[in-house]
Amino acid sequence: MKHRPGRHFLQIPGPTNVPDRVLRAMDRPTIDHRGPEFASLTKEILEACRAVFRTSGAIAIFPSSGTGAWEACLVNTLSPGDKVLMHETGQFATLWRTMAERLQLEVEFLPGDWRHGVDPAELEARLREDRQHAIRAVAIVHNETSTGITNRLAEVRRALDHAGHPALFFVDAVSSLGCMPYEHDAWEIDVTVTGSQKGLMLPPGLGLHAISKKALAAAKSSRMPKSYWSWDEILGSNRDGFFPYTPATNLLYGLREALAMLSEEGLEAVFARHARHGEAARAAVRRWGLELLPLDSREYSNSVTTVLMPPGHDPDAFRALTFDRYDLSLGMGLGKVKGKVFRIGHLGDFNDLMLMGSLAGVELGLRLAGVPHHAGGVQAAMDVCSARDAVVNPRLQPV
Amino acid sequence: MKHRPGRHFLQIPGPTNVPDRVLRAMDRPTIDHRGPEFASLTKEILEACRAVFRTSGAIAIFPSSGTGAWEACLVNTLSPGDKVLMHETGQFATLWRTMAERLQLEVEFLPGDWRHGVDPAELEARLREDRQHAIRAVAIVHNETSTGITNRLAEVRRALDHAGHPALFFVDAVSSLGCMPYEHDAWEIDVTVTGSQKGLMLPPGLGLHAISKKALAAAKSSRMPKSYWSWDEILGSNRDGFFPYTPATNLLYGLREALAMLSEEGLEAVFARHARHGEAARAAVRRWGLELLPLDSREYSNSVTTVLMPPGHDPDAFRALTFDRYDLSLGMGLGKVKGKVFRIGHLGDFNDLMLMGSLAGVELGLRLAGVPHHAGGVQAAMDVCSARDAVVNPRLQPV
Amino acid sequence: MKHRPGRHFLQIPGPTNVPDRVLRAMDRPTIDHRGPEFASLTKEILEACRAVFRTSGAIAIFPSSGTGAWEACLVNTLSPGDKVLMHETGQFATLWRTMAERLQLEVEFLPGDWRHGVDPAELEARLREDRQHAIRAVAIVHNETSTGITNRLAEVRRALDHAGHPALFFVDAVSSLGCMPYEHDAWEIDVTVTGSQKGLMLPPGLGLHAISKKALAAAKSSRMPKSYWSWDEILGSNRDGFFPYTPATNLLYGLREALAMLSEEGLEAVFARHARHGEAARAAVRRWGLELLPLDSREYSNSVTTVLMPPGHDPDAFRALTFDRYDLSLGMGLGKVKGKVFRIGHLGDFNDLMLMGSLAGVELGLRLAGVPHHAGGVQAAMDVCSARDAVVNPRLQPV
Amino acid sequence: MKHRPGRHFLQIPGPTNVPDRVLRAMDRPTIDHRGPEFASLTKEILEACRAVFRTSGAIAIFPSSGTGAWEACLVNTLSPGDKVLMHETGQFATLWRTMAERLQLEVEFLPGDWRHGVDPAELEARLREDRQHAIRAVAIVHNETSTGITNRLAEVRRALDHAGHPALFFVDAVSSLGCMPYEHDAWEIDVTVTGSQKGLMLPPGLGLHAISKKALAAAKSSRMPKSYWSWDEILGSNRDGFFPYTPATNLLYGLREALAMLSEEGLEAVFARHARHGEAARAAVRRWGLELLPLDSREYSNSVTTVLMPPGHDPDAFRALTFDRYDLSLGMGLGKVKGKVFRIGHLGDFNDLMLMGSLAGVELGLRLAGVPHHAGGVQAAMDVCSARDAVVNPRLQPV
Repeated sequence: MKHRPGRHFLQIPGPTNVPDRVLRAMDRPTIDHRGPEFASLTKEILEACRAVFRTSGAIAIFPSSGTGAWEACLVNTLSPGDKVLMHETGQFATLWRTMAERLQLEVEFLPGDWRHGVDPAELEARLREDRQHAIRAVAIVHNETSTGITNRLAEVRRALDHAGHPALFFVDAVSSLGCMPYEHDAWEIDVTVTGSQKGLMLPPGLGLHAISKKALAAAKSSRMPKSYWSWDEILGSNRDGFFPYTPATNLLYGLREALAMLSEEGLEAVFARHARHGEAARAAVRRWGLELLPLDSREYSNSVTTVLMPPGHDPDAFRALTFDRYDLSLGMGLGKVKGKVFRIGHLGDFNDLMLMGSLAGVELGLRLAGVPHHAGGVQAAMDVCSARDAVVNPRLQPV
Repeated sequence: MKHRPGRHFLQIPGPTNVPDRVLRAMDRPTIDHRGPEFASLTKEILEACRAVFRTSGAIAIFPSSGTGAWEACLVNTLSPGDKVLMHETGQFATLWRTMAERLQLEVEFLPGDWRHGVDPAELEARLREDRQHAIRAVAIVHNETSTGITNRLAEVRRALDHAGHPALFFVDAVSSLGCMPYEHDAWEIDVTVTGSQKGLMLPPGLGLHAISKKALAAAKSSRMPKSYWSWDEILGSNRDGFFPYTPATNLLYGLREALAMLSEEGLEAVFARHARHGEAARAAVRRWGLELLPLDSREYSNSVTTVLMPPGHDPDAFRALTFDRYDLSLGMGLGKVKGKVFRIGHLGDFNDLMLMGSLAGVELGLRLAGVPHHAGGVQAAMDVCSARDAVVNPRLQPV
Repeated sequence: MKHRPGRHFLQIPGPTNVPDRVLRAMDRPTIDHRGPEFASLTKEILEACRAVFRTSGAIAIFPSSGTGAWEACLVNTLSPGDKVLMHETGQFATLWRTMAERLQLEVEFLPGDWRHGVDPAELEARLREDRQHAIRAVAIVHNETSTGITNRLAEVRRALDHAGHPALFFVDAVSSLGCMPYEHDAWEIDVTVTGSQKGLMLPPGLGLHAISKKALAAAKSSRMPKSYWSWDEILGSNRDGFFPYTPATNLLYGLREALAMLSEEGLEAVFARHARHGEAARAAVRRWGLELLPLDSREYSNSVTTVLMPPGHDPDAFRALTFDRYDLSLGMGLGKVKGKVFRIGHLGDFNDLMLMGSLAGVELGLRLAGVPHHAGGVQAAMDVCSARDAVVNPRLQPV
Repeated sequence: MKHRPGRHFLQIPGPTNVPDRVLRAMDRPTIDHRGPEFASLTKEILEACRAVFRTSGAIAIFPSSGTGAWEACLVNTLSPGDKVLMHETGQFATLWRTMAERLQLEVEFLPGDWRHGVDPAELEARLREDRQHAIRAVAIVHNETSTGITNRLAEVRRALDHAGHPALFFVDAVSSLGCMPYEHDAWEIDVTVTGSQKGLMLPPGLGLHAISKKALAAAKSSRMPKSYWSWDEILGSNRDGFFPYTPATNLLYGLREALAMLSEEGLEAVFARHARHGEAARAAVRRWGLELLPLDSREYSNSVTTVLMPPGHDPDAFRALTFDRYDLSLGMGLGKVKGKVFRIGHLGDFNDLMLMGSLAGVELGLRLAGVPHHAGGVQAAMDVCSARDAVVNPRLQPV
């Protein structure tokens, strides 16, 4: 491939830019996964994971993608024929539903328009109807990477409580964990599912769970055939710092480093940074005169911004252009919005100037592609960052 | 951890020493797994894999350990209650059997003494008995990493043929592929299962399959619930260079490099090197006066040498000593031979002088631990290498 | 040091952002510098250097900074008391002069205002006056990194020719080589001096020379004491691919890679890119209403843009702020313009979106620091890039 | 180049095997050498250097090879025509002498046979004769890398004292610092010269000095033309953590890491390790029946072992063979012993099993090359290590 100068801007909503510290941590020889050095690595990681998931409970780490961790969640807790309530919030909700059906679960899929998240009131109503508690689990994608919509989990939790329904509560936090506030214990989530390649800033290859006691209890009666994903073996081995099969050692080196980075920066600072970038990106989109896919401002994602392409313009041709000309990778439209939107990822190891470079690439690309828009998107984003700076440090007055 | 000078000798039988070329190939930013650069990466890898598996058929690559690829093999081809014939050749055969049972398969497990491999005649006899062809699959571990025994696959193949039995033929080639001759097509293997961390010289985190047409046909009638492991999705996406879920991109970078290294060295040279090292390691063991675990010289492994510790001596205390004093990691005894043996791995990215250093570490460790033995093991290994040199290049006459 | 998210923007005018490809090339074990692999490395590098210096003559590579290569130039060609004509174009010309004086040369230093480059007419006049040819050498800094002024070397060459003066012609191309057109042979330069850490995209640690036959002849009569810097030994050894003392092997690995990258991108494309970035940066400065240090538009540098800070504002406090708040390193004022200017480096491994991020950092910093300016600098820079795109590829019409 | 499996054994006596920790420390972006992070890096390094040189005085670090640091030593302290007393202990003493002469110093070169080090009594006698103190400096190579001879510096110091001679005392510690006891202050050395690529475990590219107050005073009256090497500028800048010209930043990253490693292991342990390896290597040579170049056992080097090749056998053909067949680089004979010896380096980041692998490579090579020798060298080396182990830890009784 022809050499391209400078750094690639990987602004898909994940995998995200892997920081050098993480790459360098992974760039060392594999060690004996049955030796003493490995045991302390595992224990250190599990402890640091708890701080990020905000749980005092069990953590499981699989050599798998996040999709594998979805499957692990379902097969550990449920049995063939069990009923799961899901919402059509976008592509990843749809894929999880397809997986559940392939695993011989019965899915009730509340329809959605891909522009709104879960309606907690609708959920509550549906659960109240389920007098027999046929619904064994409610499964929600916290941040729909395909639409840029963040579901209001605290309200979803309250909906379950108000309905007095005992369903298990599963959450896909793949593109939210490490990007926005997340409370596994406080929100009484039973299984949180995530992957390594988004807010955790690693290459893909690890799937992770935080697991409640209620989920562990449910696992005891699960009749789903399983082996690789079984919590019993993995949690048992982990207690001593080991794994029931060969773990992805070098990714674990990277995870240790990434968790240290999150801790050094501080989770509150990490979330504030993502919030600033989300707001700035949306300001740019508004200035351009383009339309955001999400319609409810309470549900705007701080990880990814999804933009509707004006009719008559092909978002994928536009993306090919930003890639070729500006070395910028943007996310494609998936599923029902394929060919209608493009997505700007602004999550993980990212800062203000990287965001401005990325938005400049989008704006330059819109020009080149002849997409009607107003100039000034980058300026609008800068204004947001600048105003935030003034708030953070009132001593510093923007002009 | 205190700094230890020089390089660690990682002589467990896998994960193996990851070569710098592979680490460096992995040490770069993750790219968009839906972009054009990625598609060509995938296609290049699949083609190069075929050369190593010796197949013109389908290859599947999973973000998983080799254990995950075991599971993928079973759930794609079989249905609950199906009967699988396995042999107790050691710990990995035992684990695969446990997995099959957890997946609700019926396993017939031919007993073994952990010192012999599969007896092709016994297998043939058992298959002849199965007139109704109740046995759906025969699953064999090619190289038993726990015992240092290599099953004679070509003879096993002939046993199936002579018995005229239509069972599927599954092989675990985790610690044989890239180390010793392997012929997926010629031996009519239906699913070859392997992982990244042995002869392929990568960190752990990838599971791989080579798949026959017969296996693909069997998959059509499989009723095992599955999603993550499903061949249909992965093979379909791979055709275009993509994956149905986020692949372990950086490990794929490493895989491309490792496959290039195997090709540059030449598979024949790779196998000859492993054969030389296996023979040299066994010569050292004999000189020390210690006993090899395998009893049949036709089944000696060229990847790993398993040594019985004399009664009254603890192999794990010995291993702790070689680790502490000589920075040498040796493999522990697993399963039925736990506390009875230690294992010397000599596979993957390895050369003559690394072997001599490793064997010196074993011999020095035996002394320190007070294990009765004769000196001269390294010398014996050097004699083997030297003699081989003379054969390879008769112009060079050893003294 | 506290963790800072995302990538640092190193926009000092060198050392520049070292590309991952170069870092990875350097990240491997040192080899025997007297072995066969090393000899071919050296020869490959020397050949590739010639293409970048645009010479068919001798190349010398020193383990040193660029400053060392300045000294090497002077001590190889001159003798104590020899007269050298230099121009006060900025800090680096001043430092070179100081060095020459410390080396017991007699320097005639034509005064300058740090806002203009060498005036070829003035130079010609001065040389014409020198009827006895007392001036042994003319030494010019091609691109004055401290001021952002690029001397017009082709015109300087003509001035020497018109004056009919036989002086040696030395050029510091530290921050120009690999950034803008440079013609060692065509411009009849006798010694070109450069370092590794600017357009060559390496970490600092190598000094390089391109050397004319005239310079080699002059070296024969040089009476300056020297050993480390002596061309005779280094050129003699290099011919066989070796060095008279231990070379900086890992930097040479990096140099090979960097030269390959320049070749892959193509020197013309590299220069066009730097020209686009220089023009865009200046457009931003103008939009902000700030003043460029250089006054003559024929001398604008495409490597670095030097900006005068409005009176009453401290450029170093501003730089500290952009570093702290935006993780952006800008260049400080040096020498006579210390405390008066800041410098934006845009050279080496750099692309359009990195430039926009950098300029956004400057603009955000101006706001935070309360420096009076107009908004819109990034927008102005984007307009330049966009217009250039339209020229490069008329098929693509900006809106 | 064809791929070669496993790790290269780089057993030349420098550059040495660069440990992964150091390579990884260097594998990160260059930072602003005028910024705050850089200043603290410099100060940390200078402090850690003092612990290794065993001095409380000044340290200077140059972007150069060790040869550059030789030159820096001479030009900072002396003036043209000054007399320096040197000893012909081998190739590096000879090269330093040539350099001194090129720098217009007058060298008195006490002849040697390359098999003995400096005779302190002879030195003392020579200094006593010099009643007028015409000798301005005595310059000694501590460890002659070309011969494997370590000069007895403490005795040399006493010789100067007994003679009552005020000469400056310069020492080349290139292949001794970080390998064997060294006392800059206690031995009243005026300038210690070293490089990065031996006991400091870095790639080549840094030259270092430890400097006494007497040397700093001498520098004030030095009339040697100099600029790059001038202590005044470098020591002045260093005080604030900076450099007078662009430093080799990435090598400084590596130096910080290497100094940390030496400190973690402990200098005493580092020296004991080198002593064990030196003794073991010599035991191997004796077992082979080959002859060591050094004749005085008090002068055996623990960094490098130099072996005389039996008449009629070409050491360079033998070295080519060990390189081709066993991927082992051995040192060639230099200067007067070119074509007569080969050298085994055992310094830097090295451990017992790497030594055994290296010696196995030598022994296998001797066989292949048909050089008459007795087998058992590796065994003899193992016996030395084993005996040392028993001493170090009497609880552990070798059989």
